[in-house]
Amino acid sequence: MKLTRREFSRLLALGAGAELLPKIPALADDRPIGYCIVGLGRISMQHFMPAVRMSKKSRVTALVSGHRDKAEHMAAEYGVPGDSIYSYEDYDDIAKNPNIDAVYIALPNSMHAEYTIRAAKAGKHVLCEKPMATSVEDSRSMIQACQSANRKLMIAYRCQYEPVHLRAVEMIREGKIGSIESIESAFGFAIAPNEWRLDKKLSGGGPLVDVGIYCLNASRYLIGEEPVEVKGISSVVDHDGRFAQVEETLSWTARFPNGALANCNCTYGSAMRGYFRVRGSRGTITVDPAFNYDKLHLSAEFDGGGTTEFAPDEPDPVQFLREADHMADCILQNSEPKTPGQEGLRDMEWIAQIYRSCEKSNG
Amino acid sequence: MKLTRREFSRLLALGAGAELLPKIPALADDRPIGYCIVGLGRISMQHFMPAVRMSKKSRVTALVSGHRDKAEHMAAEYGVPGDSIYSYEDYDDIAKNPNIDAVYIALPNSMHAEYTIRAAKAGKHVLCEKPMATSVEDSRSMIQACQSANRKLMIAYRCQYEPVHLRAVEMIREGKIGSIESIESAFGFAIAPNEWRLDKKLSGGGPLVDVGIYCLNASRYLIGEEPVEVKGISSVVDHDGRFAQVEETLSWTARFPNGALANCNCTYGSAMRGYFRVRGSRGTITVDPAFNYDKLHLSAEFDGGGTTEFAPDEPDPVQFLREADHMADCILQNSEPKTPGQEGLRDMEWIAQIYRSCEKSNG
Repeated sequence: MKLTRREFSRLLALGAGAELLPKIPALADDRPIGYCIVGLGRISMQHFMPAVRMSKKSRVTALVSGHRDKAEHMAAEYGVPGDSIYSYEDYDDIAKNPNIDAVYIALPNSMHAEYTIRAAKAGKHVLCEKPMATSVEDSRSMIQACQSANRKLMIAYRCQYEPVHLRAVEMIREGKIGSIESIESAFGFAIAPNEWRLDKKLSGGGPLVDVGIYCLNASRYLIGEEPVEVKGISSVVDHDGRFAQVEETLSWTARFPNGALANCNCTYGSAMRGYFRVRGSRGTITVDPAFNYDKLHLSAEFDGGGTTEFAPDEPDPVQFLREADHMADCILQNSEPKTPGQEGLRDMEWIAQIYRSCEKSNG
Repeated sequence: MKLTRREFSRLLALGAGAELLPKIPALADDRPIGYCIVGLGRISMQHFMPAVRMSKKSRVTALVSGHRDKAEHMAAEYGVPGDSIYSYEDYDDIAKNPNIDAVYIALPNSMHAEYTIRAAKAGKHVLCEKPMATSVEDSRSMIQACQSANRKLMIAYRCQYEPVHLRAVEMIREGKIGSIESIESAFGFAIAPNEWRLDKKLSGGGPLVDVGIYCLNASRYLIGEEPVEVKGISSVVDHDGRFAQVEETLSWTARFPNGALANCNCTYGSAMRGYFRVRGSRGTITVDPAFNYDKLHLSAEFDGGGTTEFAPDEPDPVQFLREADHMADCILQNSEPKTPGQEGLRDMEWIAQIYRSCEKSNG
């Protein structure tokens, strides 16, 4: 049984209840997936939307913004009709727009949960930026809302679709460096004053939730297991007003079931080019830079000699194209995203544990 | 008032008590400082003794070993007379040997305290390998014994005399990278079975006391302050019998008074070339390799552009020569070593704190 999306919608309208939904086969359709971009900031306008423009599987069909001028400018650039520009107030009207298959949520973190849940209720799939929310509870609500509506929820962990990261994981799984002994990873930058990221109500935290999450997520997918213990220390060096609400620098160690330790460092206080180094019993893999939008570089050294390098030089925004296309594939084929809500939830749970640890002395 | 060592000894013999000793001026002497090498292992035979041979300020004048054959072989090579070869039993007889000014202690860690204290009682200065002991208590006893005997006690922190490390410290003090925000450092290697280092009674601990101590010590001298908090996690990955008594891998974070975090990693489980990276508010200094015997390499990046490199390519064993000569200078000039017993004690105190933290959960 193959259904076009239109047939599927008709089926739904005819009363095929939610209990039927998980059993339906993959959808097939001719047209690309239509994305509604929710939040017109740097990541949307400079990375995600240009990526979708490169895609054969996706296109930008709607915009949500609090700035009508900016939205109209972008709409003109992407061929989005005026009636497909929404404000945050009339956002729920996306339900009536058949050209929207999925929303891409690139709002301040504290708004992810609400706009994900409203999208699911409007019958749209959700690709949500990381961190998926500002609390474990909100993350669970988002998963629940998308499940109830039988909509996909994918967290935008772009690195999990990126060839250098995939090569690192592949080399590890093939045993090229033996068993993993430890990981070192760091990511950070010097933040400008007045960024919304410094407002804890909007961000939910400091560099840990914003950039440290790359190190955390990488530790988990490189090792392929969940930590069993974390310990962290957070601090403020620059008492210039930027860090009244969130940490400036945070270092943590996570212990994994086989005993491997991931030792990670993140900051808003200084340039800290993101990297990771995986030390194994038979070699070392370093990806540096690891979390940039382009020019990622893998180098490996094997015990007993031998090295390898891998640096495919995919230009920005190809990472976002891979991510957008994966979501499109999942919608078209009715398959589960590689980085579903559950993947985001796990990071949120570990982030909460790391913050709890930071609050405790361990002398 | 200038005294030769002989005149000074005579003065002492005439009853100039300990209360007088701190006031005596620097000694002057024509002959180089005579070192008695205590323990003929790799570090003595391959590094320290060849370094002393290069020195104009020092020479090897005596040996202590449990292996008479090996000792005689080395004695022949270094022109040490047969009556200046001691066993551990007749070690105290070094008191009667006027050609011995100082001992260089390169024994298993658990023996450092006893052989330091016996040397001090025999009237000899002490250059002791790191870690200075296997406990804080022993470290204090060593300091006390050397103070009571008015003998120098220097801990062999070779990196604190090495030009690349000194350049890093200098750049930091000059504000070249702004205020220090964080440090990442690691050091480790894959240990062979049956090494004495794996016997906790002899070593006092695993990679933390042996190689992690380089990261710890570097954090302290790079920042120039003592930590205010440490948290660590230790683990074993390889259950092959090597790590029945000591940790295989240990990661810790230390927080310093200004909020800077040092995030360090050490292991006996895999190759982990020692390095450190200091992230400042205006730039980054990386020394990699940092703890090898030669070929150290400093690279720095400054915000707003500009880089610098420093790699003087001093061959091994020049690091040991600098160390031996510093001790000789301190003896000849009656000055305090840059890395006295107190410096070793501080590391021992932090090592104890890190181990205590590892024993505690911090969930």
